[in-house]
Amino acid sequence: MQEYQGPATMEKITSLAKRRGFVFQSSEIYGGQSGAWDYGPLGIELKNRIQRYWWKEMTQLHDDIVGLDAAILMHPRVWEASGHVENFTDPLVDCKKCKARFRADQIDPDKLAKKECPECGGELTDTRKFNLMFKTHIGPVEDTSSVIYLRPETAQGIYVNYKNIIQSNRMKIPFGIAQVGKAFRNEIVTKNFIFRTCEFEQMEMQFFVKPGTDEEWFQIWRERRWKYYEKMGVKMDHLRWHRHGPGELAHYAKDAYDIEYLFPMGWKELEGIHNRSDYDLSRHMQYSGKDLKYIDQDNNNERYIPYIIETSAGLTRSLLMLLCDAYDEEKVADNGDADDIRTVLRFHPNLAPITVAVLPLMKKDGLAELAQEIRNELREDFATDYDQSGAIGRRYRRQDEVGTPFCVTIDYQTKEDQTVTLRFRDSMEQVRVRRADLVQRIKEEIKNYKRIK
Amino acid sequence: MQEYQGPATMEKITSLAKRRGFVFQSSEIYGGQSGAWDYGPLGIELKNRIQRYWWKEMTQLHDDIVGLDAAILMHPRVWEASGHVENFTDPLVDCKKCKARFRADQIDPDKLAKKECPECGGELTDTRKFNLMFKTHIGPVEDTSSVIYLRPETAQGIYVNYKNIIQSNRMKIPFGIAQVGKAFRNEIVTKNFIFRTCEFEQMEMQFFVKPGTDEEWFQIWRERRWKYYEKMGVKMDHLRWHRHGPGELAHYAKDAYDIEYLFPMGWKELEGIHNRSDYDLSRHMQYSGKDLKYIDQDNNNERYIPYIIETSAGLTRSLLMLLCDAYDEEKVADNGDADDIRTVLRFHPNLAPITVAVLPLMKKDGLAELAQEIRNELREDFATDYDQSGAIGRRYRRQDEVGTPFCVTIDYQTKEDQTVTLRFRDSMEQVRVRRADLVQRIKEEIKNYKRIK
Repeated sequence: MQEYQGPATMEKITSLAKRRGFVFQSSEIYGGQSGAWDYGPLGIELKNRIQRYWWKEMTQLHDDIVGLDAAILMHPRVWEASGHVENFTDPLVDCKKCKARFRADQIDPDKLAKKECPECGGELTDTRKFNLMFKTHIGPVEDTSSVIYLRPETAQGIYVNYKNIIQSNRMKIPFGIAQVGKAFRNEIVTKNFIFRTCEFEQMEMQFFVKPGTDEEWFQIWRERRWKYYEKMGVKMDHLRWHRHGPGELAHYAKDAYDIEYLFPMGWKELEGIHNRSDYDLSRHMQYSGKDLKYIDQDNNNERYIPYIIETSAGLTRSLLMLLCDAYDEEKVADNGDADDIRTVLRFHPNLAPITVAVLPLMKKDGLAELAQEIRNELREDFATDYDQSGAIGRRYRRQDEVGTPFCVTIDYQTKEDQTVTLRFRDSMEQVRVRRADLVQRIKEEIKNYKRIK
Repeated sequence: MQEYQGPATMEKITSLAKRRGFVFQSSEIYGGQSGAWDYGPLGIELKNRIQRYWWKEMTQLHDDIVGLDAAILMHPRVWEASGHVENFTDPLVDCKKCKARFRADQIDPDKLAKKECPECGGELTDTRKFNLMFKTHIGPVEDTSSVIYLRPETAQGIYVNYKNIIQSNRMKIPFGIAQVGKAFRNEIVTKNFIFRTCEFEQMEMQFFVKPGTDEEWFQIWRERRWKYYEKMGVKMDHLRWHRHGPGELAHYAKDAYDIEYLFPMGWKELEGIHNRSDYDLSRHMQYSGKDLKYIDQDNNNERYIPYIIETSAGLTRSLLMLLCDAYDEEKVADNGDADDIRTVLRFHPNLAPITVAVLPLMKKDGLAELAQEIRNELREDFATDYDQSGAIGRRYRRQDEVGTPFCVTIDYQTKEDQTVTLRFRDSMEQVRVRRADLVQRIKEEIKNYKRIK
């Protein structure tokens, strides 16, 4: 099995993310809130671009998929129907002596059977089910009738709206509903930076098909989702399929594949493609008493409960994946030091938080003002940055480290002939471009971008 | 005082929103979840476009503003520092006889003094403070040490990160931090459709300035925010300023103005511009024990607690505003009936959920296939729709009703000379355009759009 051999480590990624403003610990000045993270200036730009890329791929470029944005607070019966109230639990045990807490499925079965603490040898409590849904109360009275949950997944918001969407948007099967949004799980063990957290974001598409056609559509969506990462410019030898074995399959799943990514900490799930059968809609029919059968008006009003093919990717997890995937270190000599190491994030230009940095060679002689003018010509079309402090080589490095694909340098020649230097992040090559052609040239470079390493 | 005289009513807006897939009641198949709404296919596209428009205006087009996306779950001490644990309450009374519940500040002071129920005359309870924050528990044990809140506003996420952002992004005062995100308030009375809800989205920008310059910056931001709505193409005679009087000012505010919009239900707050003084950062210094003073390196390392100018707009509320603002009805005769009324949403083309609808005049003779081809030429650049069912006049009306600014009609002439009809929503004028020029022409029409009514 392939092991991670790239230059990234979780320590390097976490440190870069904090230092340059991708990700901060939540509420850090109060000692931090575990399980939650804040996305800084570059992090939110990267997250927004991943979200837009996914959204465009899923909705704008597909005939048969529309969007949805359901609320986080849903009717509590939804979670009875979905099975979460009953089944969305972790088995927990506590040590009566040292008070340590464990997931029963993660400690030595022998010790569990003997009720012996793996840390201090003390006596363990019985295993109890701990539900991972965050619970709150709506309205002024805290009793069982006012209990409401933070959604532990976004999918149910799609299922309960599927009839509304068919009616309002005249959808015909097969069709899909795409959604991006937050979900919350009271995870006892959060780890690997932003990989597993209590508050996270999902990008889900639920595709409704006629029973009997579901295996074919499952195959089609597996292929499409694989190509999505290809188009994104991700290292394809860092992706693999993992099929769920009989013991792994969720109670609703007829078949399930994960796309796994080779992170510095190993192969981990990035996205799941699931054949959920008619489980969800059948349950919601039963619990709501509403008829959720599809009526096929093109086919003698045939009625059936659709099967659902789900593609469920983590948005915040994708961000971590892209940081790891883009991370590179290379020995370069452009600053005169033969052993200089530059850190570079090789983001696709469509995903990079900053697209163009504008750098005057000097502050003086009107170069700074000229650079500001040129920045203003670019900012309607691109996310720009401006940096005038320090040696030009150091400024290039600062942009490399956050993945800015293009630097535009303004020098004395610019004043004379209205040309600028366009410097490419990956190759470090520089070309001279006419100021008037700059917007168009950068757009073409983005369109024709190929990752070289 | 001006009263609403337009054609919209809340009933019409609510009905259109549901019928065409802008907004659905949350968990409708379970009888609905009060205080929460789901955004359907057109609603999420509209919401995304408002958000992007605001975000671009605030970050990409400003030198000195960067973005942030803080978590909903924050350390509970944040809400002690902010004053929410103590002060974010409504005064509630209950009727002991009929069990009705009231906000004490919304019933007749005489009846309140006499403890007499305004509905049945029964006896009222004492007034009690009800905190509007949703409370939950993190970790496996539900006790006071595990209490955590859903953030009731997004602003605090900015304040606790302000030092992180200065360090990672080398910001110098004056500068701003922009954020879009969800907030939650356990409102006892939710009303006016999506105007006041328990789950909502805010678009906030907090601008950090040197004390003494705050009044000047307050003025600048009032002007900028007014121009934002102008650029958006909103009816400017439906906007007005409301300055908070001494009794209205929040405890943190030195000065405050609301931008109010004339909704069908009257003038209501759309956005607040507040001079929050140094209240928030002082409180977080005190509660966290961290030094949050700004160090002015350009000025002898002068240290001070910055003042904050806040611009806080509702995203979901902006969506309701735009539906009301865009809504129009007019008598037209283009379908041959002199008394025909068309409903049209006059969205700015940059905000409309669908930019271009492609309509074959007939399904037969290859027109449908040709129309699909042409749609595919447009979809990389625009959000498109395709509709081939029903009379062409009715299809135009369907697009008018959801605010699609451009319809492209494919007819027999298209097959002969590769031209199409481009039809404009507002004027209903039609022009003949070469297929090869279509993308460019639509981009120009968007750029030069002027609202005519």
